[in-house]
Amino acid sequence: MDWTHTIRVRYAECDRMGFVHHSIYALYFEEARTEILRHRGITYKDMEDDGLIMPVRSMNIQFKKAAKYDDLLRVSVAVVGEVNVRMDFHYTILNQNDELLCTADMEMFFVNKETMRPTRLPEKYKIHMT
Amino acid sequence: MDWTHTIRVRYAECDRMGFVHHSIYALYFEEARTEILRHRGITYKDMEDDGLIMPVRSMNIQFKKAAKYDDLLRVSVAVVGEVNVRMDFHYTILNQNDELLCTADMEMFFVNKETMRPTRLPEKYKIHMT
Amino acid sequence: MDWTHTIRVRYAECDRMGFVHHSIYALYFEEARTEILRHRGITYKDMEDDGLIMPVRSMNIQFKKAAKYDDLLRVSVAVVGEVNVRMDFHYTILNQNDELLCTADMEMFFVNKETMRPTRLPEKYKIHMT
Amino acid sequence: MDWTHTIRVRYAECDRMGFVHHSIYALYFEEARTEILRHRGITYKDMEDDGLIMPVRSMNIQFKKAAKYDDLLRVSVAVVGEVNVRMDFHYTILNQNDELLCTADMEMFFVNKETMRPTRLPEKYKIHMT
Repeated sequence: MDWTHTIRVRYAECDRMGFVHHSIYALYFEEARTEILRHRGITYKDMEDDGLIMPVRSMNIQFKKAAKYDDLLRVSVAVVGEVNVRMDFHYTILNQNDELLCTADMEMFFVNKETMRPTRLPEKYKIHMT
Repeated sequence: MDWTHTIRVRYAECDRMGFVHHSIYALYFEEARTEILRHRGITYKDMEDDGLIMPVRSMNIQFKKAAKYDDLLRVSVAVVGEVNVRMDFHYTILNQNDELLCTADMEMFFVNKETMRPTRLPEKYKIHMT
Repeated sequence: MDWTHTIRVRYAECDRMGFVHHSIYALYFEEARTEILRHRGITYKDMEDDGLIMPVRSMNIQFKKAAKYDDLLRVSVAVVGEVNVRMDFHYTILNQNDELLCTADMEMFFVNKETMRPTRLPEKYKIHMT
Repeated sequence: MDWTHTIRVRYAECDRMGFVHHSIYALYFEEARTEILRHRGITYKDMEDDGLIMPVRSMNIQFKKAAKYDDLLRVSVAVVGEVNVRMDFHYTILNQNDELLCTADMEMFFVNKETMRPTRLPEKYKIHMT
């Protein structure tokens, strides 16, 4: 499955260079990831209220070209490989001129909020995510 | 009681104008507020772990002059009036040239995290805060 | 003129209490303000590229009820009074259940980026803003 | 050269899980990077005012253990390899219990702000950075 989500760059997200600060891209990935789940019939909020959280194990971003204030970004997210205890995502961001701004890979994993231990994704969620 | 805390402006906190974005001042106030409590012998973390949270009821900031990247700010915080269900703070921020950058007033109140209802500040904390 | 803009609360915008942090509301107001201008035929980006910036003179927020993760907020923005050297805004935020979360007032003013001095809003922009 | 900088985790930097949000670590790295340069006799602010900027080419973070609210972090930064057009950094973050929270690698490069083209680090800065 993959999904593209549109995000308008906020003023406060840009730095003195006029570029989106590199810390902000993680917020864009998160918003896109949330929306792909919603599109698949579940919400991350419901999962978390149900006791399942998804910490990030690693995040690797390759910046190609700067995003700028007021840019209209298309953030694409794809699930990579099997979903089990881990769930891996690949992202790309294009701007309104179809320029590739960055690509990223992120490893996340499922944790039971009570025990705080890694856990397999329950079957009821799995059908939505694969 | 009052207290002054020193904060260095981060790059990502500045916008395209080169100024600290107005949303960021609330973070500076919070850091100063946390440190005045620590100085008085308690931590906000312990309070919250103990079931007491402090939402903000109102925040009013008067901006006089822009803070800039790499500025070394002195954030002063004073507790205003009686501390009971409410706790009111007044802040001022000066830069390294003793220029007044902003003043602010903030009303906070105590809430029991279990009941989510407003509550008086317990006596054990009161001696640290007044 | 007034305008309502819809914003989905991001995960990273919420704090340990599960509430949108009070610093974040300024970002929501800014996004709504940007969109009302776009709707009126101009962009803040063009204004700034044209040498006109809009610092904030004061911001006063009254928090009524907490916004939470994944809430779908309706941020309304209205221009208050005459637009000249100053431009004043009033904001209200409702959640998806029509609950009033906060109201806010903000004074901004126009500054010439070259001289860094306050200036009247040029006529070419005024027709879009009043 | 390497350098360790101490940072107290802010309340607003933590999410609903009570952990520092993964987007925030880039801010910690930046603060540590800024301080290592200051310690070496230059400031990033002066460099930028002098027309030299340092965009990020890639950022790769491995998260080992969550940082939490009020943690006192020690952020170590080391310059890796030769400094020329590129400058590569390696970071590690420990908490107050000496637990390793994350490691990260970042590639940055020097850009002339006028031409917006990559450039070698001028000699006058090089003596401070190597």
